Amino acid sequence: MRATVMYGAGDVRMEDVPDARLIEPTDALVRVTRACVCGGDLWPYKTMEPSETGLHMGHEAIGVVEAVGTDVRTISKGDVVVVPSAYSDGTCAFCHKGLQTSCVHGGFFGTEDVEGTQAEAVRVPLADGTLFALPVGEDDALMPSLLTLSDVMGTGHHAAVAADVGPGKTVAVVGLCGVIAARRLGAAQIMMLGRHADRISLAKELGATDIVSERGEEAVERVRDLTNGLGVHSVLECVGIEQSTKTAIEIARPGGAVGRVGVPQDETMPASQLAFYGNVTVGGGPAPVRAYIEELLPDILDGRIEPGRVFDRVVRLDEVPEGYRAMNEREAIKVMVQT
Amino acid sequence: MRATVMYGAGDVRMEDVPDARLIEPTDALVRVTRACVCGGDLWPYKTMEPSETGLHMGHEAIGVVEAVGTDVRTISKGDVVVVPSAYSDGTCAFCHKGLQTSCVHGGFFGTEDVEGTQAEAVRVPLADGTLFALPVGEDDALMPSLLTLSDVMGTGHHAAVAADVGPGKTVAVVGLCGVIAARRLGAAQIMMLGRHADRISLAKELGATDIVSERGEEAVERVRDLTNGLGVHSVLECVGIEQSTKTAIEIARPGGAVGRVGVPQDETMPASQLAFYGNVTVGGGPAPVRAYIEELLPDILDGRIEPGRVFDRVVRLDEVPEGYRAMNEREAIKVMVQT
Repeated sequence: MRATVMYGAGDVRMEDVPDARLIEPTDALVRVTRACVCGGDLWPYKTMEPSETGLHMGHEAIGVVEAVGTDVRTISKGDVVVVPSAYSDGTCAFCHKGLQTSCVHGGFFGTEDVEGTQAEAVRVPLADGTLFALPVGEDDALMPSLLTLSDVMGTGHHAAVAADVGPGKTVAVVGLCGVIAARRLGAAQIMMLGRHADRISLAKELGATDIVSERGEEAVERVRDLTNGLGVHSVLECVGIEQSTKTAIEIARPGGAVGRVGVPQDETMPASQLAFYGNVTVGGGPAPVRAYIEELLPDILDGRIEPGRVFDRVVRLDEVPEGYRAMNEREAIKVMVQT
Repeated sequence: MRATVMYGAGDVRMEDVPDARLIEPTDALVRVTRACVCGGDLWPYKTMEPSETGLHMGHEAIGVVEAVGTDVRTISKGDVVVVPSAYSDGTCAFCHKGLQTSCVHGGFFGTEDVEGTQAEAVRVPLADGTLFALPVGEDDALMPSLLTLSDVMGTGHHAAVAADVGPGKTVAVVGLCGVIAARRLGAAQIMMLGRHADRISLAKELGATDIVSERGEEAVERVRDLTNGLGVHSVLECVGIEQSTKTAIEIARPGGAVGRVGVPQDETMPASQLAFYGNVTVGGGPAPVRAYIEELLPDILDGRIEPGRVFDRVVRLDEVPEGYRAMNEREAIKVMVQT
């Protein structure tokens, strides 16, 4: 089958690889109908050391179940399913708490454990716990928005939950991922910190009330100006570099919260004392998107949220390398792969 | 009057200073009947650069109101009052949220703004918002426990709240401050990390179920052994140095929380990625003890908690320098000053 393999920074190839197949009796085999390129995929695209074996990429998909192992009970051949970024057994203490990303038997797609979803098909471990069967056909018009349930919408929601967003609150979003989530949870004011024209335009359409295009200390000043000098209740930090994390803490008001979903690129967190003196909570992490599908799905089906609008380019599977290039050069915000 | 002035590391003196007096119409003048030396006072005691003017020390006290300014409405001469570590107006947005340590007109005792409580008397700014009048006489037998409402008990409670302690949870306490608070909030298992015999003994009496005397990686292993390999739900971090913060994050289970009340000694926080991957929340800060008095006081008056037991030495005001020395050399856990 065809699959996306990354061999090093800037070196993504579409290749013939052995067909995905059932291995464990708890596996499902899913034919991928939609996948996408994640902002997170751009980190290895920028930094990966050359590898002879390569890494099979992708951790977001919707597809159709082609076969299930003998121990799979709740998922059947023919189901149209969301493949969340992490696989999980659905039964451990952490899964019961809705933290499937810490499942004791779980892991992530597109890693050395399990191959990626930017491919014709993918083996899904622990299918009963991992997959979510959708009540729609494989070419439903809502497919772009439904695809975001596999990662990006759930991640924005997770940032908003970790940042304690709620009705009437003031929220700042560093990056784009959480504007829809913040609006959905009733935020009164949503500031998007960003400079790229396409992203700003999209953020406004999705519900951002203010755009802060300044950087560093000037951005902090501007957010303070917009909040009577107090800072915001909630900050959604979707980038993960030192400067963005520092800014996130600096713009939070005392007693506020920063929800991090951008993978931290450094082992230490900046502005620790500032967070402490202001009683600013820093939470978040990899989003347990499987936990959020049930809550977010009705809003997509009813058209109350349209997270599929983050996709501004669609490519065929063979064009995935071009999709990486376009996102990396900021020609595209987010690329959907239609197989 | 007599007051405690620190002139540099290891150099604490009891001196004659100008009498405390009313300055603003919102002030109260409080004659100090009990004060104490805080673990936090040991940082300047270890590290303060030599100063010609010195710093008036102390931010915990109970006393009797001697006089009030013309704008003070709710506090009267003769009231026996708790002086919390921070003064606050009681009316701003942060005070209304119970975060008096971030009061827009507030500040801390024993700083360059307002003099300290390890003295015969203290000027209390914003008396209506700051002081809490007690329903007992100035020599009540519960005075040691009531004194802890000015800082240490409220701080332990704040750590427990920030660490999301609740019924049935497993809790680890790095330092001593939060054992009582964790037990009071219903924790099922309370591990105290510490090595000093007196502290261990006291922690057991106050409700610690397990003592972890190992350090670093060995402490982490031991906590994992005690929790089926999962780590604890809640960590109360009461020390603030890099190693203790790192350990706190390492022993938290995925989805758990670290409540920090030890002032971070470094500008960056360690183990940021580890916290992120486990969705471990890090919260806390200076404890808004004023907010907690109402909740904690009934438990002290009814004898359900006895936080005064943390005091294992009592000194007269002139002996305060000896109290610093004893705490610094770990001869005493916490010193009460009886004026």
